Amino acid sequence: MIVELICVGTEMLLGNIVNTNAQYIAQRAAALGLSMYHQDVVGDNEKRLEDTITSALLRSDIIILSGGLGPTDDDITKEVAAKVFEMPLVMHEPSKKHIIDFFAAIQSNITSNNWKQAMVPEGATILPNENGTAPGLIMEKAGKTMILLPGPPTELYPMFEHQVEPYLKSKIPEVLVSSMVKVCGIGESQTETMIKDMLCTQTNPTIAPYAKLGEVHLRVTARAKSRKEAEKLIIPVVEELKNRFGENIYTTEEAVTLEEAVVRLLKKHDLKLATAESCTGGMIGSRLVNVAGISDIYRGGFVTYSNKLKKKCLDVSKKTLKTYGAVSHQTAKEMARGCLLAADADVAVAVTGIAGPGGGTEEKPVGLVYISCAFGEELYVQECHFTGDRETIRTLTASFALDMVRRCVLRKYGN
Amino acid sequence: MIVELICVGTEMLLGNIVNTNAQYIAQRAAALGLSMYHQDVVGDNEKRLEDTITSALLRSDIIILSGGLGPTDDDITKEVAAKVFEMPLVMHEPSKKHIIDFFAAIQSNITSNNWKQAMVPEGATILPNENGTAPGLIMEKAGKTMILLPGPPTELYPMFEHQVEPYLKSKIPEVLVSSMVKVCGIGESQTETMIKDMLCTQTNPTIAPYAKLGEVHLRVTARAKSRKEAEKLIIPVVEELKNRFGENIYTTEEAVTLEEAVVRLLKKHDLKLATAESCTGGMIGSRLVNVAGISDIYRGGFVTYSNKLKKKCLDVSKKTLKTYGAVSHQTAKEMARGCLLAADADVAVAVTGIAGPGGGTEEKPVGLVYISCAFGEELYVQECHFTGDRETIRTLTASFALDMVRRCVLRKYGN
Repeated sequence: MIVELICVGTEMLLGNIVNTNAQYIAQRAAALGLSMYHQDVVGDNEKRLEDTITSALLRSDIIILSGGLGPTDDDITKEVAAKVFEMPLVMHEPSKKHIIDFFAAIQSNITSNNWKQAMVPEGATILPNENGTAPGLIMEKAGKTMILLPGPPTELYPMFEHQVEPYLKSKIPEVLVSSMVKVCGIGESQTETMIKDMLCTQTNPTIAPYAKLGEVHLRVTARAKSRKEAEKLIIPVVEELKNRFGENIYTTEEAVTLEEAVVRLLKKHDLKLATAESCTGGMIGSRLVNVAGISDIYRGGFVTYSNKLKKKCLDVSKKTLKTYGAVSHQTAKEMARGCLLAADADVAVAVTGIAGPGGGTEEKPVGLVYISCAFGEELYVQECHFTGDRETIRTLTASFALDMVRRCVLRKYGN
Repeated sequence: MIVELICVGTEMLLGNIVNTNAQYIAQRAAALGLSMYHQDVVGDNEKRLEDTITSALLRSDIIILSGGLGPTDDDITKEVAAKVFEMPLVMHEPSKKHIIDFFAAIQSNITSNNWKQAMVPEGATILPNENGTAPGLIMEKAGKTMILLPGPPTELYPMFEHQVEPYLKSKIPEVLVSSMVKVCGIGESQTETMIKDMLCTQTNPTIAPYAKLGEVHLRVTARAKSRKEAEKLIIPVVEELKNRFGENIYTTEEAVTLEEAVVRLLKKHDLKLATAESCTGGMIGSRLVNVAGISDIYRGGFVTYSNKLKKKCLDVSKKTLKTYGAVSHQTAKEMARGCLLAADADVAVAVTGIAGPGGGTEEKPVGLVYISCAFGEELYVQECHFTGDRETIRTLTASFALDMVRRCVLRKYGN
């Protein structure tokens, strides 16, 4: 069953809003096991909308249209869809009553153009709108379906979940279930090379790799008659990925970020963390603090951007800074050790590097970063070479630092 | 000149990511005065991509394609575009060298699939990629143009701004010049109310407001025969906005962020800044440190997430914490004062608040934040009530803190 999405609205063509409806509907459709091969955005223009609908009907079974159901003359989605399916518009009395009630509730006057929203294509199924005045519509003709939904997410989401999904489910013979495996510390091409045989021979389940900054996400998706059966297909594939990537996998949960995985691990082993940041300037702390409930394990941190603060707060020795410089193995290690003691933490991570665009030398180029992790008596340090602009280098540094904490804890305690 | 956008990637059809590239490109194209009537999203499928390109070429002059330029077999945008324009793929030596240098810099191995990225359609203009290995491409044939760009925003945005925009501008007969006025500290509706008369009567120049988190950006755009003429039209409008918004305007430069405006102001008056963060967890420092050359004015900061560190690093008194709590006027002020002294700074900003989702009480609800600024002997404090999720509250807190530093300096020194 192929579904296609048409989002109607000039505001998207002008870039005034980001099309979050597309992501929402695509996600829900994928979860239902529907295939989506096209998404279109078109403005409030009759001819162009009609052409877009006509093309979509040639290649897809179900067309979901969002937007353009409002009361103004601009709003033409319903009129054009009705024209394509040759269904005349008729007054729908319950919708008319809903509009009267709605305006009474908000103590506002009905303007004549509001009645337009109670006109529906003859023979369509009406989806009452819990949060607005425009009803949704399901129109069927010759084996094809059009589903018209209001544009505002507050109206679209509940209508989709409560009324459209039950309808779509009734049309689908198979379910689609997917699992996520998130890998860090190795790049996209290396990740793909490590599973090239699996990628080449895959049919069901499939593995789809997505590169993120400093991470690769692998989505494993299976199609089957039932959810249980699909899950059974997924398990051995995820197991095989675990075998191949080992501790490079930081989570197999869709919603878990790297910082969340680190926080969970620290919580599990009741370890208190502190951070000492130079080139990241607080980004590691900021990412950690975005995890709700972080206060259980995060002591806090130091943004020791100046050498003065490195000495004062973290007790980095003057001699080290003078002999090896602020961006060095030695300074990173002293920062981590000093941070651990100053914050009375169990684990401390420190970073120092050159984020650019200026400040690089031949010996110490832009992108050179030292990350050090102090864990009780142990002290690790890693030299990294990142490329990209200042923000990319800083983001990669923060990710690698979080990952280093994770690996240090895993090395000691296992999973 | 009609431009059409095709975003290539199965991840959008599955709803794994929201298509922010579409908004970005649409916004930039609109600012250039180009008309966009269609946006398409299509997966990594040869036949469907080819059909989509072919349809787009029938109705639009310039097709911008984003995504699908990566090294894997999935990535087919270049191959399909070259097929449609009947341009054979040839090895591009500078791109090959760039790949070699890129992997050398990150000390990683080149896998054989990386070379694919150095193959380019014969006759295409190559757009070097500052932040990745896939070059962008401009391909022209029979009055039609295809522009191929990498999908990751960190690569696409700079390539678009530095290389694609100059190309597009050269194609447009009238020039479009725009100026940006960035306002903070007042909301979107208040901003619009303050210029309602200007918005209602505008023709050329136009004023377009864009709401951002904690800021409103007003783009003033004029259309004229020459750049000089357009600039002349813009000046009085920008002056009027300056009259109306006064010190709520933090910049009139397109590329300047709030943190950059703050850094510039501090540099101008040779003032050293330090930060003390609780609920933001380092976000203020991180935003500041993303400004290149920050080391001249930023001493560093403290992420005093625990009360222990508030006492130890910032000398917040035990009594204050006990009597008024960590989230209070008093604690914020002591944090700012303590931070100023500990970091030997001229200005210190401190934040403490409840970012949620947990931790709120009736007396101190989620969203309550105190921001304090110590400036020499002076000490300011502001109570804020923010709404939104944890990340929104933290981002707003960081923005208001940066803005408070700006206003404190302005109050003393003027612009």
